[in-house]
Order: sequence, then structure tokens, then C-alpha cells
Amino acid sequence: METARFGGTPKGGICRLALSDEDKSVRTWFAQTCEALGCTVTYDSMGNQFARRAGTCETLQPIMIGSHLDTQPTGGKFDGILGVLGGVAVLRALHRADVSTRHPIEVVNWTNEEGARFTPPMLASGVFGGAFTQEFARSRPDKNGITLGEALEQTGFVGEEECGKHPASAYFELHIEQGPVLEAEEKTIGVVQGVQAMRWYDVTVTGQDAHAGTTPMTMRSDALWSAARMIDGVHQVAMNHAPDGLSTVGIIECLPASSNVIPGSVHFTVDLRHPSDGTLEIMEKEFYQTLEAIAASCGVEFSISPTWTSDAVHFDPLCVSFVEKSAQNLGYSARKIVSGAGHDAVYVARVVPTAMIFVPCWKGISHNEAESAEPHDVTAGANVLLHAVLQADSE
Amino acid sequence: METARFGGTPKGGICRLALSDEDKSVRTWFAQTCEALGCTVTYDSMGNQFARRAGTCETLQPIMIGSHLDTQPTGGKFDGILGVLGGVAVLRALHRADVSTRHPIEVVNWTNEEGARFTPPMLASGVFGGAFTQEFARSRPDKNGITLGEALEQTGFVGEEECGKHPASAYFELHIEQGPVLEAEEKTIGVVQGVQAMRWYDVTVTGQDAHAGTTPMTMRSDALWSAARMIDGVHQVAMNHAPDGLSTVGIIECLPASSNVIPGSVHFTVDLRHPSDGTLEIMEKEFYQTLEAIAASCGVEFSISPTWTSDAVHFDPLCVSFVEKSAQNLGYSARKIVSGAGHDAVYVARVVPTAMIFVPCWKGISHNEAESAEPHDVTAGANVLLHAVLQADSE
Ligand SMILES: NC(=O)NCCC(=O)O
Ligand SMILES: NC(=O)NCCC(=O)O
Repeated sequence: METARFGGTPKGGICRLALSDEDKSVRTWFAQTCEALGCTVTYDSMGNQFARRAGTCETLQPIMIGSHLDTQPTGGKFDGILGVLGGVAVLRALHRADVSTRHPIEVVNWTNEEGARFTPPMLASGVFGGAFTQEFARSRPDKNGITLGEALEQTGFVGEEECGKHPASAYFELHIEQGPVLEAEEKTIGVVQGVQAMRWYDVTVTGQDAHAGTTPMTMRSDALWSAARMIDGVHQVAMNHAPDGLSTVGIIECLPASSNVIPGSVHFTVDLRHPSDGTLEIMEKEFYQTLEAIAASCGVEFSISPTWTSDAVHFDPLCVSFVEKSAQNLGYSARKIVSGAGHDAVYVARVVPTAMIFVPCWKGISHNEAESAEPHDVTAGANVLLHAVLQADSE
Repeated sequence: METARFGGTPKGGICRLALSDEDKSVRTWFAQTCEALGCTVTYDSMGNQFARRAGTCETLQPIMIGSHLDTQPTGGKFDGILGVLGGVAVLRALHRADVSTRHPIEVVNWTNEEGARFTPPMLASGVFGGAFTQEFARSRPDKNGITLGEALEQTGFVGEEECGKHPASAYFELHIEQGPVLEAEEKTIGVVQGVQAMRWYDVTVTGQDAHAGTTPMTMRSDALWSAARMIDGVHQVAMNHAPDGLSTVGIIECLPASSNVIPGSVHFTVDLRHPSDGTLEIMEKEFYQTLEAIAASCGVEFSISPTWTSDAVHFDPLCVSFVEKSAQNLGYSARKIVSGAGHDAVYVARVVPTAMIFVPCWKGISHNEAESAEPHDVTAGANVLLHAVLQADSE
């Protein structure tokens, strides 16, 4: 995609962490590109970037299109980016065809969607939707201790407008599915009904540093061996709720990290997901019980701190119907689908009528440099986006 | 102990990685202390530090006493340090009592024993004993890519003498046991017969980065979940050879290390030990088979590269008898013991008749800031050291 020169990796992916130099470059590119299409670009207090194309009836609230331009450390060229570039494509189509809309049309680039540099994900759309306070969001540190607030000030992409005060009448987000369903069923468009529930945790396991060569196996308090058994236990929790339950340990760190020292301390993250809030609640209980049992049998201490909860989301029926009808009118095969990934739409949906459009991606692979999508699917997605926006405009 | 001001930690331990600023300071202290006792201090090409007290018969090769002053990242005040300070105590006793010995007496501080900054352990005594070439040892990188050779040049502790060319007629090393046996049996002196066999490996597990929220559990190639099962498998290998078999995973790293990305790559270290070379060979086979079976069942690739092998060592019977007799003559309770930890003595024993003296340490805890030993045990150890040296001198 067009933005891959900002943070492109040798393996064909993108490494563009939120508010990094690469992110700064792509933000400048986005602003210049939209300005060339006659838009005005503004920022809010969380660095969210709004490119506005005027409507004929400026008292009407804008119809928003958006997603994010930040990526995972080994991210792909589509996750988030498609939604913003899809928006730019809509602006370009309207500009070239010299079409006026009643509502202003705005394309938004939300800050720090991935949660890779600053956790949790969707931090700035979360402030917009009222899920997080701006104080909390700005205080989030990256792994070098730089807070999101500090990074925002450094990059200079901070506007006067208080995040969340920006009005909108509807929000549409185009995204690759990031999963295997559409490709397997050979459907071009996913009419997204909502987003599954997800919870994040930090786990700390505390044993005792000891010598690898002199400490009998039965006298050890080995934080890493215990953590290993816990990670297998966390995997089992998802398997207990197959096929919809998911669990992932994405980060692990151990101390003191020396080959001949039994680790006394381990930290790891846990990501649990399920489409049903109720089942996720049960999974959480099983997760706690599993860790308790393993800690007791391995002779270590542990603590779990929940770091993020996002309940299941159900999108606005009218906006969803615009997506469905557009796909139908344009003759694309489509199916209803629930998103496994979180998106900015999750939090925007709290305050603005919202819907999402999915297109298939290669093998369902995402958060991977090999992430890919077919040009005709991407084009179809942008077409549905344009038509859904036009339907919303004519309401 | 006297050196704790160089790298002392708030928890009462020491962090003094080989050739760090703290290590430089303690080396300077060691040189000045020995010079004040009338010694001459020299360095060899691996930075090993020799403090020599002249003998009456300078044609006789020196009797060496030694160990190391570097520590683990969260190390204690005794591991290694006791052996060097015990040597200084011997020099001081001889100096104060104005006793002459026939042989020169030398106290050695070996560079990078711990293997915490530069792997493998006992790197400089390994070059001394011919186990490693100097080229290999100097090329070993720390985690920031600085090689041991570069660190040696930076610190300036490099002498003209080629490492391994320094003559010696006997070598004695005093050390805390680092294990629980002497304390449990209420023995003051361990007469060390030798050192168990040990092998180190680097393991890399390769799966596929994928999205934590959209990738079905059954379609994952999760390098971290697989590594977790492998770590449990490695633990089991030691349990199969209880009570003497030991296995430890001390370091783990995963990539890309983001909470919502299934890790595509994990690296961990493995340390396997057993007093018998034959049994360690069997443990290694089981370790390879275990990882193969887990990788196959989890759908990941893996590779194992052996990074260090140290066969079982049997010390010199005459030197061991000097230790045994000294303990007996001084009236200390003693027992024969095999060392679970590697020591500089392992490699020095290849070229110089060698023995070791163990004293109990608190709860057998080592490679831990809480490492501790009783003053009367430490004194007993130093006494046995002095007397063993004097016996060797009178042979
Ligand atoms: N779309 C996407 O990958 N968002 C990151 C948030 C999540 O973990 O689902
Ligand atoms: N004595 C000691 O802790 N040496 C480190 C080498 C080993 O791992 O045994």
C-alpha cells in the first residue's frame, strides 16, 4: 500500500510504532495528501488526525471514516492502513467526480490503535469514546518509560480540540478481516455485526533465584518452569471453550536472565477473548484457578493484574444495514461476521452510530509482515465504504 | 565481604559483571591490597590477575590459590570472592607472621568465571587450561555485542604474558558449597573430589506471528506456547534422573513481544548437569527427543545448538589429600563432596594438580543476593586453605 515507505521492512511488512519517527512521516504524508484533495486537517488533544471535506450543509455533523496508521513491530501493510487509505480513496473519488455531499466527510487517523507501543490498544479512540480518561491515556508508558503524552508533545501532533468533543453523525471503518473466514467461504465483504469481548492481564511469578548446578530439583522455586506450565494452562483454558475461546501469551520476560541461574522472577501477558461476555467471564475464572493450582504445586507466588477489558460490542443496526445494502447493490458476495480483533470502531461506537466492513486477507494472517489482500477485494471494500457513506449522507 | 562496596546492591548482594566498571574497581582494590602485602601483581593476555609473594626458592613453580571476583547480575558476596579473599587472607597471615615459603605463593583472580556477561563460564581459566582458544574466548559477545576482547582492551587489564604460559605446581580454590549438603549434615569442610558434568544449549523455536484475536487456536503455530511445553519437558528430563540429574532454563526471549501477537520466535537456554558423563549423555538424548515430539505436536520448527560442554572432573589425589589432612589436623568436621557448580578449578585442573575446599552456605542458596556464610565456617575454610598450601610447599 502507498504508505509502506514509512517504516517498511525487508520482509515486506511495516514497523511503524505509534508516534515513532515513521509514524510522524506517515502522518505528514496523510495530511498533505488530504489537503491536496481540498480537505482541512486538524488534530485533537490525543493526536487524532481529522481530514475534513466540506459538505453543502455545514450544520450537519460529519460522516466519519477512519482507522489507524500505526502498526505492530512486525506488522503488515493492511491492518488499519486500509481503513485510512480507503477513506482517502473515498475523498479522491468524490473530489475527482466533483460530487458534493450534504454532510462534511471526515477521514480520521486514530493514535496508537495497536497497543504495541502503549498499552492498551485503541487508546485514543478509547478517549474519544469515553472508555478511558485522557489523563490515563497520556500517562501510559512505552517500554523505555516514555509516556504517550510525552511522545505526543515531542511529535507536535497535538491540537487544541479536546478529544471526544469532535461531533460525528456516523462512523465507518473498512478493515481486513485478519482471520480466515471470508477467504475460506470465498466471500468478498464481511458485514461486521460487532466485536468479541477481550481481556488483558499482566502476570508476575515470583520464585527464588538459585544456582542451576547445585540446587536439587525438589528444592527449587523456579519462576520460569512454573510460568511455562501456566502458559500451557492458559492455552488449555481456550481449548476448554473451543472453537470460539482464544488465549494468547504474547510477551514473556524473566530475571535475572542468566543461563546458570534458576529464574526468580517472570512476567508474562495474557489475552483472553470470546464473542460472549458470559463465557469470557467463565474463562477468566478458569484462568485464575489454573494459575493458582500450578503456583501451589510448583511452590511459587504469583499475581494477576487485569490491564484491559473490552466487552462485546454490537454495531448500529442502521449503519450496518447501509453496509449490507451497499454490498448487495454492488453485487459483491457478503456474509455477516463478528470481529475477533479490537478496532477503533469499538470505542467510537459508544458515542457515534458505527459499522465496519471487512475484506478477506491472505490465509487470515495478520500482525505479521506477510499480511496481504487481493487488489480486487480491497477495491470492493472501498466501493462498499463509499456507497455506505453516500447512503448515510442521503438519510 | 570486603569487596561488596564494588557493585553492592540494596538487597545485600553484588552485581559485578565481568569487566564492568565495578569489576575494574575491585581489580584495582585487589592489586593494591596484595601490593601492600609485598606482592607483585601481573596480568596475562586474558586479564587474569596474579599477585605473587616471593618464595625462598624461586626456581620452584608457584603454588596458586584463586577464584574470581566477577558475579551474577543478582549475585551474592561469596561466590568466587571467598576464594580470592581467602587467598589474600593466606598472604596476610604469611606476611604478618613473617613466614617464608619455599615456593612462591600466588593468588589469582580469573576473568569472567560466571558466564553471565560472556558465555560460557570459566572462560579465562578455560584458556589457561587449554579448553578454549584465546581467539574463541576474546570473540565472545555480551548482550550488547561488545566482545570480551574489546572489554579487556577498554579496561586495560591486559598483560604481555600469553594466557596458559604461567607456571604453577599446585592450585587450591576455596569456595562456598553453593548447595545444601554441608549445612544439612552439619559439616564444616567439604573435601571436593571433583566436579559434575555440564552441558549448555541454545534453543530457537520458530512458529508464525499471527493475530491473537482472529487466529483460531487450531490454526496457530505458537512459538511461545510450544517453548512453554518444551521447558516443562526439559524439567522432566532431570526428574527422569532424580535425584542427581539437573536441568534449568535460565533465559527466555520472545518476538515480536506484543500482547496481541502470537509469538513467531522464541529463544531459550538449557543447562543440563549430572555427576556421570554417561548419564548426561542419556539426558541429552532425552532432551532432543522431547523437543522433537513437542515441536511436531505443536506445529513449530526448532533448532538446538550446543554452546558448552564440561565433562566430569576428578581432582588430583595428592592435592585432595592435603585438604583432607588439613581439615583433620585442624579438627574440623569434613566430608567428601562433588561440586555441582563449575569452577575455575575445572579448567586449571587440566594443567596443574588441583583441589578445592568447600564451606557451607546459608540454605545452600547461591546465585542470589541473599547468599550467605557463617564467619566461623569462612575462617575454617581459609585455615584449611593455608594449611593445604603449606603442606604442598613442604612436599
Ligand atoms: N485490529 C487490530 O489488530 N487491533 C488491535 C487490537 C486487538 O488486539 O484486537
Ligand atoms: N561457581 C559458579 O557458580 N560458577 C558458575 C559456573 C556454573 O554454572 O556452574
